[in-house]
Amino acid sequence: MKLYTYFRSSAAFRVRIALNLKDIRYQSVYVNLKPGQDEQYQEEYRHLNPEARVPFLVDNDVHLSQSTAILEYLEEQYPNPHLLPGTVKARATVRQIVNLIACDIHPLNNLSVLEKLKQNFSASQEACDVWYRDWVERGFAPLEALLAQHAGTFCFGDEVTMADLYLIPQVWNAHRFSVNMGPFPTISRIYRHCLTLPAFEAAMPERQDDNPNR
Amino acid sequence: MKLYTYFRSSAAFRVRIALNLKDIRYQSVYVNLKPGQDEQYQEEYRHLNPEARVPFLVDNDVHLSQSTAILEYLEEQYPNPHLLPGTVKARATVRQIVNLIACDIHPLNNLSVLEKLKQNFSASQEACDVWYRDWVERGFAPLEALLAQHAGTFCFGDEVTMADLYLIPQVWNAHRFSVNMGPFPTISRIYRHCLTLPAFEAAMPERQDDNPNR
Repeated sequence: MKLYTYFRSSAAFRVRIALNLKDIRYQSVYVNLKPGQDEQYQEEYRHLNPEARVPFLVDNDVHLSQSTAILEYLEEQYPNPHLLPGTVKARATVRQIVNLIACDIHPLNNLSVLEKLKQNFSASQEACDVWYRDWVERGFAPLEALLAQHAGTFCFGDEVTMADLYLIPQVWNAHRFSVNMGPFPTISRIYRHCLTLPAFEAAMPERQDDNPNR
Repeated sequence: MKLYTYFRSSAAFRVRIALNLKDIRYQSVYVNLKPGQDEQYQEEYRHLNPEARVPFLVDNDVHLSQSTAILEYLEEQYPNPHLLPGTVKARATVRQIVNLIACDIHPLNNLSVLEKLKQNFSASQEACDVWYRDWVERGFAPLEALLAQHAGTFCFGDEVTMADLYLIPQVWNAHRFSVNMGPFPTISRIYRHCLTLPAFEAAMPERQDDNPNR
């Protein structure tokens, strides 16, 4: 199995955690998304993945982009340990948390979006940071309410689910942009707990071989 | 079953199509998202759904936001007719298409995002339109390539799947913003075909009771 990845990509971070939890061996192929490097736009990579993003998974004849599609695929193909709970209702809540982060927070704060704000609106770095923090806070407020209802030691009860794979990268990213985490005690508590687990810790940007500050 | 909906919301449009295809009777509760009306921010609705967005589904004791979570829930709870294909590999491709639209196109073009561009960057309507069209075109280009590989009369082969439920609202929206659909013949063909089907047609914004121009 091959994972095309970039250390700082939240979406690749999610998949790295899943592969670690499921104890699947894989080869990392590094795609440098840093503005100015832009390896995702190189002909060879675009040929493989016309979306020009990471993560991208190659597993035999399955070639797959989109972290959520990749995670649902891994869950079906390599079900142990399960990352979705056992009842229809519980799975629905986990996917609600997943999509709140995957659709309402993360896409607005992607590197490509911040770059476009600078291009189209001459946005300063400070204005980009305000934009970033606003979307995170607007998403974390209802997320905190949802987790206060459903969380145990993890987002949903006391076992790891797919929801944790979305939360941890998003919080890691929020710290990077100095989001005030004071109003989000449940989110912060789950974050601290997850990072004590080797599968999460080994997936962190700080631990990736393509991190230049490593 | 109750669906909180707004005629123009792409995410609610997806769920309306699914409910029609699965022949599930439901009651529509209209939430007026029009700027200035902003019914999603009213106390009563926020109490029900702290995310302050539509769609929101109430099915007995299941209360659910996030269209993708709702659609996966409906698929598990009311499996006939199936909207996901029968093999792991095929489901992965359908979810890839779903998430390309749900994460890489739609969130950037939401009403709330366009409003925020105006607020934070004094963006003109024209600048918002350019922003809108850029993200749609950037997403439709790889989507067209993906569909050229997998489409039959629908996005994936010759049967309706969840992918079509995402494509049709996104194209409807793209027309509204005058996106040039010339480079996307496969997308356009599937769009025209789906709208000949009653389940899609009845879900269109033009056909909803809360559409003031109806």
